[in-house]
Amino acid sequence: MMRQQLGRILEALRSGTLSVEDALDKIAQIGYEDLGFAKVDLHRRQRRGTAEVVLCERKAPEHIVEIVRALDRAGQNIFCTRISPEAARYVMRRVKGLRHNKMARTLYKENHAVPRKKGLVVVVAAGTSDYPVAEEAAVTAEVLGSPVAQLHDVGVAGIHRLLSKSELLRSANVIVAVAGMEGALPSVVAGLVEAPVIAVPTSVGYGASFGGLAALLAMLNSCSSGIAVVNIDNGFGAGYFAHLINR
Amino acid sequence: MMRQQLGRILEALRSGTLSVEDALDKIAQIGYEDLGFAKVDLHRRQRRGTAEVVLCERKAPEHIVEIVRALDRAGQNIFCTRISPEAARYVMRRVKGLRHNKMARTLYKENHAVPRKKGLVVVVAAGTSDYPVAEEAAVTAEVLGSPVAQLHDVGVAGIHRLLSKSELLRSANVIVAVAGMEGALPSVVAGLVEAPVIAVPTSVGYGASFGGLAALLAMLNSCSSGIAVVNIDNGFGAGYFAHLINR
Amino acid sequence: MMRQQLGRILEALRSGTLSVEDALDKIAQIGYEDLGFAKVDLHRRQRRGTAEVVLCERKAPEHIVEIVRALDRAGQNIFCTRISPEAARYVMRRVKGLRHNKMARTLYKENHAVPRKKGLVVVVAAGTSDYPVAEEAAVTAEVLGSPVAQLHDVGVAGIHRLLSKSELLRSANVIVAVAGMEGALPSVVAGLVEAPVIAVPTSVGYGASFGGLAALLAMLNSCSSGIAVVNIDNGFGAGYFAHLINR
Amino acid sequence: MMRQQLGRILEALRSGTLSVEDALDKIAQIGYEDLGFAKVDLHRRQRRGTAEVVLCERKAPEHIVEIVRALDRAGQNIFCTRISPEAARYVMRRVKGLRHNKMARTLYKENHAVPRKKGLVVVVAAGTSDYPVAEEAAVTAEVLGSPVAQLHDVGVAGIHRLLSKSELLRSANVIVAVAGMEGALPSVVAGLVEAPVIAVPTSVGYGASFGGLAALLAMLNSCSSGIAVVNIDNGFGAGYFAHLINR
Amino acid sequence: MMRQQLGRILEALRSGTLSVEDALDKIAQIGYEDLGFAKVDLHRRQRRGTAEVVLCERKAPEHIVEIVRALDRAGQNIFCTRISPEAARYVMRRVKGLRHNKMARTLYKENHAVPRKKGLVVVVAAGTSDYPVAEEAAVTAEVLGSPVAQLHDVGVAGIHRLLSKSELLRSANVIVAVAGMEGALPSVVAGLVEAPVIAVPTSVGYGASFGGLAALLAMLNSCSSGIAVVNIDNGFGAGYFAHLINR
Amino acid sequence: MMRQQLGRILEALRSGTLSVEDALDKIAQIGYEDLGFAKVDLHRRQRRGTAEVVLCERKAPEHIVEIVRALDRAGQNIFCTRISPEAARYVMRRVKGLRHNKMARTLYKENHAVPRKKGLVVVVAAGTSDYPVAEEAAVTAEVLGSPVAQLHDVGVAGIHRLLSKSELLRSANVIVAVAGMEGALPSVVAGLVEAPVIAVPTSVGYGASFGGLAALLAMLNSCSSGIAVVNIDNGFGAGYFAHLINR
Amino acid sequence: MMRQQLGRILEALRSGTLSVEDALDKIAQIGYEDLGFAKVDLHRRQRRGTAEVVLCERKAPEHIVEIVRALDRAGQNIFCTRISPEAARYVMRRVKGLRHNKMARTLYKENHAVPRKKGLVVVVAAGTSDYPVAEEAAVTAEVLGSPVAQLHDVGVAGIHRLLSKSELLRSANVIVAVAGMEGALPSVVAGLVEAPVIAVPTSVGYGASFGGLAALLAMLNSCSSGIAVVNIDNGFGAGYFAHLINR
Amino acid sequence: MMRQQLGRILEALRSGTLSVEDALDKIAQIGYEDLGFAKVDLHRRQRRGTAEVVLCERKAPEHIVEIVRALDRAGQNIFCTRISPEAARYVMRRVKGLRHNKMARTLYKENHAVPRKKGLVVVVAAGTSDYPVAEEAAVTAEVLGSPVAQLHDVGVAGIHRLLSKSELLRSANVIVAVAGMEGALPSVVAGLVEAPVIAVPTSVGYGASFGGLAALLAMLNSCSSGIAVVNIDNGFGAGYFAHLINR
Repeated sequence: MMRQQLGRILEALRSGTLSVEDALDKIAQIGYEDLGFAKVDLHRRQRRGTAEVVLCERKAPEHIVEIVRALDRAGQNIFCTRISPEAARYVMRRVKGLRHNKMARTLYKENHAVPRKKGLVVVVAAGTSDYPVAEEAAVTAEVLGSPVAQLHDVGVAGIHRLLSKSELLRSANVIVAVAGMEGALPSVVAGLVEAPVIAVPTSVGYGASFGGLAALLAMLNSCSSGIAVVNIDNGFGAGYFAHLINR
Repeated sequence: MMRQQLGRILEALRSGTLSVEDALDKIAQIGYEDLGFAKVDLHRRQRRGTAEVVLCERKAPEHIVEIVRALDRAGQNIFCTRISPEAARYVMRRVKGLRHNKMARTLYKENHAVPRKKGLVVVVAAGTSDYPVAEEAAVTAEVLGSPVAQLHDVGVAGIHRLLSKSELLRSANVIVAVAGMEGALPSVVAGLVEAPVIAVPTSVGYGASFGGLAALLAMLNSCSSGIAVVNIDNGFGAGYFAHLINR
Repeated sequence: MMRQQLGRILEALRSGTLSVEDALDKIAQIGYEDLGFAKVDLHRRQRRGTAEVVLCERKAPEHIVEIVRALDRAGQNIFCTRISPEAARYVMRRVKGLRHNKMARTLYKENHAVPRKKGLVVVVAAGTSDYPVAEEAAVTAEVLGSPVAQLHDVGVAGIHRLLSKSELLRSANVIVAVAGMEGALPSVVAGLVEAPVIAVPTSVGYGASFGGLAALLAMLNSCSSGIAVVNIDNGFGAGYFAHLINR
Repeated sequence: MMRQQLGRILEALRSGTLSVEDALDKIAQIGYEDLGFAKVDLHRRQRRGTAEVVLCERKAPEHIVEIVRALDRAGQNIFCTRISPEAARYVMRRVKGLRHNKMARTLYKENHAVPRKKGLVVVVAAGTSDYPVAEEAAVTAEVLGSPVAQLHDVGVAGIHRLLSKSELLRSANVIVAVAGMEGALPSVVAGLVEAPVIAVPTSVGYGASFGGLAALLAMLNSCSSGIAVVNIDNGFGAGYFAHLINR
Repeated sequence: MMRQQLGRILEALRSGTLSVEDALDKIAQIGYEDLGFAKVDLHRRQRRGTAEVVLCERKAPEHIVEIVRALDRAGQNIFCTRISPEAARYVMRRVKGLRHNKMARTLYKENHAVPRKKGLVVVVAAGTSDYPVAEEAAVTAEVLGSPVAQLHDVGVAGIHRLLSKSELLRSANVIVAVAGMEGALPSVVAGLVEAPVIAVPTSVGYGASFGGLAALLAMLNSCSSGIAVVNIDNGFGAGYFAHLINR
Repeated sequence: MMRQQLGRILEALRSGTLSVEDALDKIAQIGYEDLGFAKVDLHRRQRRGTAEVVLCERKAPEHIVEIVRALDRAGQNIFCTRISPEAARYVMRRVKGLRHNKMARTLYKENHAVPRKKGLVVVVAAGTSDYPVAEEAAVTAEVLGSPVAQLHDVGVAGIHRLLSKSELLRSANVIVAVAGMEGALPSVVAGLVEAPVIAVPTSVGYGASFGGLAALLAMLNSCSSGIAVVNIDNGFGAGYFAHLINR
Repeated sequence: MMRQQLGRILEALRSGTLSVEDALDKIAQIGYEDLGFAKVDLHRRQRRGTAEVVLCERKAPEHIVEIVRALDRAGQNIFCTRISPEAARYVMRRVKGLRHNKMARTLYKENHAVPRKKGLVVVVAAGTSDYPVAEEAAVTAEVLGSPVAQLHDVGVAGIHRLLSKSELLRSANVIVAVAGMEGALPSVVAGLVEAPVIAVPTSVGYGASFGGLAALLAMLNSCSSGIAVVNIDNGFGAGYFAHLINR
Repeated sequence: MMRQQLGRILEALRSGTLSVEDALDKIAQIGYEDLGFAKVDLHRRQRRGTAEVVLCERKAPEHIVEIVRALDRAGQNIFCTRISPEAARYVMRRVKGLRHNKMARTLYKENHAVPRKKGLVVVVAAGTSDYPVAEEAAVTAEVLGSPVAQLHDVGVAGIHRLLSKSELLRSANVIVAVAGMEGALPSVVAGLVEAPVIAVPTSVGYGASFGGLAALLAMLNSCSSGIAVVNIDNGFGAGYFAHLINR
């Protein structure tokens, strides 16, 4: 589709019915359906290889519905993150076929099959309170086409719990390690495996954890090689990055 | 080698000449040559897939020499990072065959051929002052076996410089984006490509850059998906992570 | 009016019926109507060139009404910012002719025509969540007399959205660039235009955005020239500053 | 010149001897002379309206010379900032006609006349220690074509010093207010004038000034309208922004 | 009373019926009435010269009542600070004769006349939002015996408002200057008077004011001499300190 | 029990019916009862010497009940911390024999007698607002088997209150010193006694206390020797550490 | 002198030979001798009651000499603070009669007798490393006319050292308490005396003292009443404030 | 000795030749030898159980010599910490019998035998760069009378190195765990042992380690129980605290 539209513009340019500048503008606008309040990127799949993700935090439920409908009309897969339970209910009553993951705070609808990758993404979480962020990472990677395995409650305070799962860790193509408090899990995991480790600090903690800052700094300063870090509580970013590696 | 040693221990365990606990200790010690001040990991190549890297910052030159010699004796490749010009000279006079990259502050000696990967690592740097960190990333990925291309002085203040190189960016399997000051380069790059982008904040800047903190925070808060971040000025970590992805 | 009062005081001084000190005090008090809890500056238009703005945050609705009435009695234009929906309703029931902009959280009443400027102020916002701050900036500049155009959802993650609007950007006399998260938009915009760019960081983001600190630091450290920054979420300040430039 | 080169490319595109993509790349490269380590922007004057400025901090003297020579060959005006006394001497011995301002740490050479603006830029500094930053702002605005007046040692501890100069302040088209320590000067100045005020925090102070952070925060939180802020010690940025307003 | 008790203990020591250690313990316990959860200091007036103040924040209403009753029984003046409207109502229903200042969040009951001082304490506040903190300072100094005058809405954005009141400022024996946002008021005031200035930062502001941190840092870094600072929003501390100076 | 299970595995290994790796995995899993969402450590008493503690913050009441039941079934003592009043009621209705300490926010059930230690733990708190944290520390140490004495409202503002209790302080085997605001209590206490002092900063305070940061930094920088610090408000951690010392 | 000049201007105003505005400017300029780089305030003694103090940090020795000479010519007392040993030697060779206090880093010359106050200023310092800051405070108060007593090495780690000096502390009219590290000294001192306590945090410490931040925060959060704080290491500010109280 | 002096004073009090107040003062002064610049605590051994330690940082070599001599004359053991190589040489030339540990930066002289404790202190360090801090901790505990074992280069990046030493760790009565960068070592160690763990963050690291802040925050937020923390690089404090526990 995009190819056809683009072809028509270029021919107009060559034939002289269009100036270069006008051509550039037209090309840039092919992929958008302008909803006034937000520019929905309908052809992102072609350009970036994945469907556009709708970050619902701070968005009004009515706006989410409009964006979701636009994606639905275009036959795109729909993936909403950080959606509140209320907004999820609101949207699901208006758009059919969405699946809601409460723990991960996501909505998903598959309008076309996503190709499945072979490499395994393992999501490891330090404590039970880190579970929602881990789940967001896992759901994201799965939705994009990566097989995912999860491993919970394996914080460094009881290192033998983690060690007893080394085999699973070593089978991963990429690991997402989620931890709050002192954020030591990614360092230990990266010392056990060859795969790259994506570290996700969480805001789990109190006092001098300063909303996840302690875990974030710990992960950035890891003495292990093979670690890169995403924002505090950014399970989506970690799952997305894991899938990019996995391709 | 390691396999043979391990085999001998397990047979001793089964035959009853060794207790389980003693067996575990012996296994753990197979791969080390204890130098007193540092435990050199000689079999890391088997376990982690890459040679151990010698971080030279804060190490006395005499100690670096001892570690380098131990690796040399074991037939390992030698890769020293963050080595001062003085320490580099000191070590090179005592160990033969080391190559010194002044800009990247590295020493390298290849005692056995490293298998070359196919995927391209592109290292992009915002300003000329970010060059040393970019070079450290590039050298690291190369030494580990990844082909690397570099692109300098393409900061977001002149976005057309970057855009004119989109083809090179799109040919990358993984991108390392290095920037100080406002650290916006990785966000823009990640919006242009499908490959994962490893963001490296640098301490380039003054005043409210607070030693790279501004760039670090910007990168962690990127509105683009597909970005993960390493520590300020950690070119090595980015190059290492890029290579892990590239395998 | 002010001129006449001042003239009378100076004549009293010269004629000896007033001491210099008494004269100074009287002059300073001409322009105020003292409401006890707040000194309303009724002659600001003469001195500063713009009507006094009523910042409503932390003010009790009854006090806002009294200030608004004093301005109304003096024939001044009335411009209230950061007013809550409840306070807005309260004030509008008591003072006639006020227009309420919910998104921008402002009230406005034009008691005398404001001279319109020729130069265009373009307000650019990175994401849909930045819209309220952008709207506050736009309304402020408009109320003061500047023509304003707005451009939304043009964050740096999809740089071609922004580039396709270069013509509009280049037609601006001054640009207000609003962005949360990594705050990279002003840097990219300033690299595209000749006009001065006023950067407004917003508190949009989570985790390591620390309430807008990440965006603020990024904007202060911009590698582009031609950028100055206002406080986090300070749409009013940016719109006001843009209008001052535009005069 | 640039126009002619561009014309030739577009004709090639229309005539079919060039693909659209190749055309875009060629256009982007017209204005650069690639020095390997830095891309010098020779046609910035056409695009941005001002000559490119060479930030010398962290640049090797030999590289500065190469960049300066490239600008010189292209007949551009040359303006180097943050140049150390040693680097300045090194460059001046190799390129003729440069003027050195030690206080402002700048080098300047005018290869073609700059059109002079009419509006006055007034640079105000709080204390004698703020003088170098104020001078950098003043020199920058002057070099770009703005008339500049300076006013020193008028900190808020002796408010009458500042008030006695109100006439000069009121004659300004734009004011640059430079202050360290508590950074209160811009707030007071902005209350006295109609012109926009660009606030420059300096690192002057000790203890809880935290390298200029106290002054920066104060300026961002000013209770006066009409203030925008640049980075700590960024005299150049303020002077540049003042000139953009002044045009 | 205390004297009599002390006399008895010392005589016991001399006469040998008491050891030195026991004597010390008994002396230390004279002034307390132990309520279990809090040690009320009933003789503070003798030792420190002022009645004990009851900080009500985080205290349960029932506990406040018990403490207030103990002070009442001992014939002490009662001064409660930071009391919520609900707690104030609760306490006033149970203890007679208390006066409630809602703005200052205080309760007061004078059980014995306080000697009045001669020197004037002037409390100056920058904006109307700073009024509660200023009122707390004023009430505190008054309750302790100092005459107080207040001056509101004299922020540095309109410096002439402040200057028109110089006479009042110069008549002060000590000044309390209260300001949020950029916190510049104390610097300007201290430049106008000979009296010591106690600076009180408030949490008034948003964005980069970081809960009063900006104002606090500004006040600590004042370029004026004769300023000392108390904690953010600490009106009580400033009023208390002002009274100590005034004695 | 654990011993018997372990014995069986090792015999299997020796007899050749189990590989070494399988043996290791089986050993690691002996002590867990996997509840899906959390791995309960039932044999911690053998390994670490104390029962596992259930941190209830951020845990759903249903999950707490499941964990508590698993511990109950295994005959373990049950100790829940940071439990909300609502969750406590929910759990107590479902599991018999739990005692609730509201101030300390703990639940406790003793399924087997804990051996009592001889050394005394003294918990000292600076102000009445620090009481909940002090109580959490005291309950923790008691539950684990240490005798505890408490001393409240002995902040450094009235140093004689503390000094009058020196005898009690000197009788302690280990002291827990709890303080918010300026956090000076541990320094003074450590200067009076020979016992180690565990310092607990609390979030009591306002303004520049920054949620307990001021007290935390003060305690870390104590000029007294013999002090170690736990996280802000971490009464449990201090009580636990005190008991470890006391053994 | 100033009176005579002022009289002449006012007469000119009344007689009509001068406009009001011109009169104001002339009045403001009476007290200055403009040195170009710094406005020396020669009549400060009349207005503020104390001689102007020359802060030498960041000033070139030649400029210090010029300022000192201008004060000397005007018959003012000369007090230089924060002067380096080198600058002190340079100035003393050029201006006669200056006394140098190396520890306090001050120069002083008394050109006219300063009236001596009766109240005692006691300067207390926690550790031997705090001595220079304490000495600066002491010298400042003495030079301005206050009797000063000093008390060193009385940190709270050995509280009995401080208590054994209670008599001296109680004889003070105002106390300056200087401490680094945890900054607890002012809290303890203020609990012992009736006099106001000026707290001076010092940068003495390491690690988490963050250049005096820990001590500063502790002092701002003191649980004792009657404390106000100056900037880190600001001995001069404390001595000056103490003298203002003492008058 | 102290007992005899005290006895004489108390008899004087009872016999009436001394007032109570004079008695208190005399008692307080028994233990000091006042050197003018520092009060040396000669009887600390009686009161606190350990010799006074001389912190040499920021002390002039001459002053160290005087303090050391006073301790020597009193027959005390001498322990100097944080002494520079230059100061150490200066002191050793003037006082005989001192042993210098360069790595730990200590001087020690044993004038009387210290009783040896039975419990073992194990000092564990993550990396070779943490060695000096670990050595300071080890020397401190040894000098005070505790047997010490050290374990180096056992960071969490290679967890098997640490696990292979579990037996040594489990034999400890108290463990000091020293780590920079992400500071994860104490969490892992505390999960393996029953003994209390004293965590020492070090300033080893770069970028976002912020001088040891990352490690400090990680340790304070440990998910393991049984950890308490000392200041960054405070090896002495950890060794001292370990010895107090060990008694």
